[in-house]
Amino acid sequence: MVWFWYYWQRQKLPEYVQFMKDHYPPNFQYADFAPQFRAEFFDADEWAKIFKDAGARYVVLTTKHHEGFTLWPSKYSFNWNAMSVGPKRDLVGEFSNAIKKSGLRLGLYHSLYEWFNPLYMKDKANNFTTKEFVEAKTMPELYELVNTYHPDYIWSDGAPWDSGNSSYWNAPEFIAWLYNDSPVRYTVVTNDRWGMDVSCKHGGVLTCSDRYNPGKLKNRKWENAFTIDKKSWGFRRNAALSDFMTIQEILHQVITTVSYGGNALIDVGPTPYGTIPPIFQERLKQLGSWLRVNGEGIYRTVPWVHQNDTVNPHVWYTVSKYSSVLVYAFLLEWPDNNIVKLGAPEPSNKTVVYLVGYPDPIPWKAGPNGGIQLTIPNIPLPQMPCVWAWAFRLVDLSN
Amino acid sequence: MVWFWYYWQRQKLPEYVQFMKDHYPPNFQYADFAPQFRAEFFDADEWAKIFKDAGARYVVLTTKHHEGFTLWPSKYSFNWNAMSVGPKRDLVGEFSNAIKKSGLRLGLYHSLYEWFNPLYMKDKANNFTTKEFVEAKTMPELYELVNTYHPDYIWSDGAPWDSGNSSYWNAPEFIAWLYNDSPVRYTVVTNDRWGMDVSCKHGGVLTCSDRYNPGKLKNRKWENAFTIDKKSWGFRRNAALSDFMTIQEILHQVITTVSYGGNALIDVGPTPYGTIPPIFQERLKQLGSWLRVNGEGIYRTVPWVHQNDTVNPHVWYTVSKYSSVLVYAFLLEWPDNNIVKLGAPEPSNKTVVYLVGYPDPIPWKAGPNGGIQLTIPNIPLPQMPCVWAWAFRLVDLSN
Amino acid sequence: MVWFWYYWQRQKLPEYVQFMKDHYPPNFQYADFAPQFRAEFFDADEWAKIFKDAGARYVVLTTKHHEGFTLWPSKYSFNWNAMSVGPKRDLVGEFSNAIKKSGLRLGLYHSLYEWFNPLYMKDKANNFTTKEFVEAKTMPELYELVNTYHPDYIWSDGAPWDSGNSSYWNAPEFIAWLYNDSPVRYTVVTNDRWGMDVSCKHGGVLTCSDRYNPGKLKNRKWENAFTIDKKSWGFRRNAALSDFMTIQEILHQVITTVSYGGNALIDVGPTPYGTIPPIFQERLKQLGSWLRVNGEGIYRTVPWVHQNDTVNPHVWYTVSKYSSVLVYAFLLEWPDNNIVKLGAPEPSNKTVVYLVGYPDPIPWKAGPNGGIQLTIPNIPLPQMPCVWAWAFRLVDLSN
Amino acid sequence: MVWFWYYWQRQKLPEYVQFMKDHYPPNFQYADFAPQFRAEFFDADEWAKIFKDAGARYVVLTTKHHEGFTLWPSKYSFNWNAMSVGPKRDLVGEFSNAIKKSGLRLGLYHSLYEWFNPLYMKDKANNFTTKEFVEAKTMPELYELVNTYHPDYIWSDGAPWDSGNSSYWNAPEFIAWLYNDSPVRYTVVTNDRWGMDVSCKHGGVLTCSDRYNPGKLKNRKWENAFTIDKKSWGFRRNAALSDFMTIQEILHQVITTVSYGGNALIDVGPTPYGTIPPIFQERLKQLGSWLRVNGEGIYRTVPWVHQNDTVNPHVWYTVSKYSSVLVYAFLLEWPDNNIVKLGAPEPSNKTVVYLVGYPDPIPWKAGPNGGIQLTIPNIPLPQMPCVWAWAFRLVDLSN
Repeated sequence: MVWFWYYWQRQKLPEYVQFMKDHYPPNFQYADFAPQFRAEFFDADEWAKIFKDAGARYVVLTTKHHEGFTLWPSKYSFNWNAMSVGPKRDLVGEFSNAIKKSGLRLGLYHSLYEWFNPLYMKDKANNFTTKEFVEAKTMPELYELVNTYHPDYIWSDGAPWDSGNSSYWNAPEFIAWLYNDSPVRYTVVTNDRWGMDVSCKHGGVLTCSDRYNPGKLKNRKWENAFTIDKKSWGFRRNAALSDFMTIQEILHQVITTVSYGGNALIDVGPTPYGTIPPIFQERLKQLGSWLRVNGEGIYRTVPWVHQNDTVNPHVWYTVSKYSSVLVYAFLLEWPDNNIVKLGAPEPSNKTVVYLVGYPDPIPWKAGPNGGIQLTIPNIPLPQMPCVWAWAFRLVDLSN
Repeated sequence: MVWFWYYWQRQKLPEYVQFMKDHYPPNFQYADFAPQFRAEFFDADEWAKIFKDAGARYVVLTTKHHEGFTLWPSKYSFNWNAMSVGPKRDLVGEFSNAIKKSGLRLGLYHSLYEWFNPLYMKDKANNFTTKEFVEAKTMPELYELVNTYHPDYIWSDGAPWDSGNSSYWNAPEFIAWLYNDSPVRYTVVTNDRWGMDVSCKHGGVLTCSDRYNPGKLKNRKWENAFTIDKKSWGFRRNAALSDFMTIQEILHQVITTVSYGGNALIDVGPTPYGTIPPIFQERLKQLGSWLRVNGEGIYRTVPWVHQNDTVNPHVWYTVSKYSSVLVYAFLLEWPDNNIVKLGAPEPSNKTVVYLVGYPDPIPWKAGPNGGIQLTIPNIPLPQMPCVWAWAFRLVDLSN
Repeated sequence: MVWFWYYWQRQKLPEYVQFMKDHYPPNFQYADFAPQFRAEFFDADEWAKIFKDAGARYVVLTTKHHEGFTLWPSKYSFNWNAMSVGPKRDLVGEFSNAIKKSGLRLGLYHSLYEWFNPLYMKDKANNFTTKEFVEAKTMPELYELVNTYHPDYIWSDGAPWDSGNSSYWNAPEFIAWLYNDSPVRYTVVTNDRWGMDVSCKHGGVLTCSDRYNPGKLKNRKWENAFTIDKKSWGFRRNAALSDFMTIQEILHQVITTVSYGGNALIDVGPTPYGTIPPIFQERLKQLGSWLRVNGEGIYRTVPWVHQNDTVNPHVWYTVSKYSSVLVYAFLLEWPDNNIVKLGAPEPSNKTVVYLVGYPDPIPWKAGPNGGIQLTIPNIPLPQMPCVWAWAFRLVDLSN
Repeated sequence: MVWFWYYWQRQKLPEYVQFMKDHYPPNFQYADFAPQFRAEFFDADEWAKIFKDAGARYVVLTTKHHEGFTLWPSKYSFNWNAMSVGPKRDLVGEFSNAIKKSGLRLGLYHSLYEWFNPLYMKDKANNFTTKEFVEAKTMPELYELVNTYHPDYIWSDGAPWDSGNSSYWNAPEFIAWLYNDSPVRYTVVTNDRWGMDVSCKHGGVLTCSDRYNPGKLKNRKWENAFTIDKKSWGFRRNAALSDFMTIQEILHQVITTVSYGGNALIDVGPTPYGTIPPIFQERLKQLGSWLRVNGEGIYRTVPWVHQNDTVNPHVWYTVSKYSSVLVYAFLLEWPDNNIVKLGAPEPSNKTVVYLVGYPDPIPWKAGPNGGIQLTIPNIPLPQMPCVWAWAFRLVDLSN
């Protein structure tokens, strides 16, 4: 439902308007949907297990999106929260406990902005010279969230395309409190969406726009938040298989993001009955199986001096954060002739190359114009470490 | 539904709890009912006509009861109002227009207090030293109501049995604004339920407790708010006929109330689909037919020196507000022998007595121990002005 | 809902079509309403009490109307009956027990015909040369009804305006079984709607068309089935008070019907939640109070030689079924001058006249051109036996 | 929902009973679910495309399962069919048209038996000496289905575990009509579930029990109907990823079934809103990609003299139906050393071996104790025809 309300009633996209006309009574409103969201199968421990098995290190839950419905029993969202309507459960609480128990880091997404909240609309009509919405609803809510659930990561969404500056949101006061006085002051991280003036400029992690991938190194940590369902941030009942990223496409995003120094935040759309649809689980499981083999080139690495290569367009690099002679080259397409050419590495005679997950070293020779050229031997299929996206570990033992 | 939430979840009355167990899913909550309230047949002009034909001079609509759901699109009740959920209409707006158009006075009931609002519960837990609820929700709402609909009468409900003082509610500021600066400052009237300290003491009209009838004269205007369904202020699907007041019982309340200088506010319970059930219409129609005959003794009258009588327990008095020699005696039970004895009036030899609605004077003689004794002639049934509660007009022409 | 389906989808009356368009999803069908019928407050003993207090001698329940939904768990109406959908109760069973326990006679209405049943439509398209519908559904159902609930009165509805002859319905076989072999063969009565050829011609009780009142004597027992809600045989949520017959109108129907030798069958429309709306209870209670006074002229009487009168248009007659000198004259309007003129009775000097319910004889004299003229004395209002429709008992003691 | 009703109310499995207790009103019944089945996204052409791309040659739709709800507007299932309740569409009609248009064969599953139909229960209680259910509902329905939609394949379900013999079902008459007089008499095929006496014995295709795989050759065509969701024949909202067969497991079923001369019928569970969940599409797409490479060993083949092998437990055989020297060996697990040993084939010196989908012949030599031994060369990964289940084509050119 994530963007449904907006498409339907603000933008009035014909496809959405027609669907509602065909299947619902004429004056059905968004709020009428709430009782249908029941989350009856929601099992936070099951979710935590799925994310952990996928190789995630942190997980971010949408605790309130732009429609303003809170998934925890907020004092500031009377009868428009998951304890009063629908599930009748503190979903944020259950989720937070399960994530922490599983050893993952807890991220909480919170939209400062609410599309249709009449107080917000009033403040906006007043050109953000009033703050009724901020003071009566959205900021009290955010303090409550931090004080109650102690997140490791706050993913604030000030909706940079349509909202006030950080001073309207009282963001400086909040940030000051967060790092000086809050119960998570020693551990918490935040992102950058705290108002139109600071978005993509300040903040612990730059998130900028959705599916942000700058295509170059940045001087701050940044995050590429993308969705497995290419058309939606939420669950769509009528999604076709072709709408979902393949595992190859997901690995392409993950690898290029890490290569440029970003984090990958991968969105899945849970159902109103509280499950993660099997197709998302399938992709997460594929990702997990890949990371169990190739994670050494992802988790404890930083950008290398080169990110990619003029010789081979299918290769991306990272380097161990502990040793500059331990370089990883990720290969997104396997060559037809079993010869892998890399332009950026300069091998010494002490260089050893491994296909990560395969025991024997890979024979190589120097490339004709620099670089290195690997010759893949006859590896029986069961011994191939994976069938999509391979990592080569290049170690220079000369130092 | 009026008190349902409270009985069910706060008091946990077994009858209510069992009904919900038998007919709804286990975790069904009050807010889940909202989409079932659709008011699809609500026709404000039809309502105005019914009230006008019943002889009403002012009408009071419950714009928000203790559950906090506003019947107008309040900015301060996001997704918990009749424009967002259920009817999708501004019911207060439609009602206000229709009432004003019909020439009746517009009263708006507004509950300051909300049973389960978490901000209210927090303020209360703080012993009313904080005012988050007052400032974020209930007072902004009330200002909005006055500014938008311009009521003639504000029936505030500070819920004297369980709420703070008038200072907690910021009532003095509101009252000052109302009479000095508001758009209705020259015309508006209010009641007294503005906090536990002032209820039944100050205010334009004392309403005190429900079904308030002091049984004596008061030095202020007061109001007896009572319900035709003796068991409820709202619609009950399973009300039996015996739960409804008979027209005789209603007339008893109206006549005694007026005799003591009060106003009668008669409650009916509309359906969730927006109609006034026919049994209420029947009573209102009976009342209207009675008032068309006998209204002269009700509308423009004030309490007389006597309210009732030691000689005849079934009689109550009023007097014209324009002439002290025009006295009305209301008779609630007709005597078996056609002789009506009244103890309080002292007739002169110029006293003339009429049965209101019948043309010929009624023969009388002085009572044996003072008072007056009327002898009813053989009036054919079709010429009887009414069959329940009769008014006698006593005019002393000697002055 | 009684005729709703038909008006909406067969006749496509604009008012009905528009209402569905305004309030329901576009492809909502009649069968989708079924789960909303829950009868959660249905209390058969309470119903029996209401009917008994109204003075009824027999009661008829609609066990299945033209939409084909059976209120008992019929084997022949799979998933389209009140045990499978909606109430989940055997409403016919509960009703039958309560009615019998209270001493009333049990009548069961059963529609042979079903508007939209595709088997019926097929038989009809075949010009009633096939009987698939009769043999697979409607007749097995009726046998089941009789065998299970043992009714005293079967009110069959062959829908004379749109259905086959009695031979199509296999009615002769059923009737033969009913009176010869069924468990109720010694007691049962039926009506006449067994096919287009016999309707209003044969059968124990002629019901002919709805609201049937022939306006003359018939040589068979007949029945006037009429509805208190003048616009419907069922419950209408949006019925106005003016749609309901007044007690005066009801008494007019009852008295004229009995005067012509008919039975009155008075329809009320229960709610989907299983109650009889208070306005119907009000009318039934008024009727009961009237019958407790005046029943002697209704229950054990037969048509007199005169039914009405050329002298007084407001008078109708019955005569005791045990004594031809005990005549009742029902007066529908009270004369302005307290003089009641009757043209038909020929008094002897031993004739005595009473106002039923008042103890003293009424003075009379012979009318100027025959008949009799009564002079009503000064009766105090509390001693008037009723305020609508009065009965005079004329007894000729000369024989 | 497929078996839900049965588990919940007949077997009263605690897990099902508890779920209903936790989430629905106490007297909620199965039929109350029907309006929630709306199929609003059902697109028959989209379905046909998915099945065609999966490599299917025929598709079977469940037109009515044991709960008796027909997906077409049957005359014999009044108000318990998809045109009257829920979707309001002729799903069988739309499906049949789309399947035929796409060139696939149309199969229609029809359950003779209905768990809770009271007529069936009566016949059963009568020890199948009566046939009310057969004659009023299930057989008329099946004739209607054939006459209306002209299927190529009728998948009858006489529910062999709990139902009468073929004579109870009037199956011989139906079969005689089907092959002699029906509109599909020249093309139609049926299965064997026509009663407890014939199930798994007679019929065009033996289906026997669910997931039937005899593990040996049969003298008739047979079918292995299995489900991708290992726990259900229908959609389960709370299915975990681990409940779905992997593509390797599916290929194992398909290959062994074909090797023994059976057909594979692969069940997917559509959603109540009319879509095929993406995880099923994923498996069907994987299957289709595999069949596009390896279909030559599946579609036009028959069982070979050997089905499997004592030397290699992971191999299964088929042979071209047109040439006995064209043998296919399917390999379910790839050997760690790239040496594939087959025990059953006896190569001549004119034998040529191919990995289906790879252009060059595969070197081989005779096995030490007979059979043949293949040596796989260094095939670059992009040239491997598939990554699960490989087919070898062995051609003996000596004849």
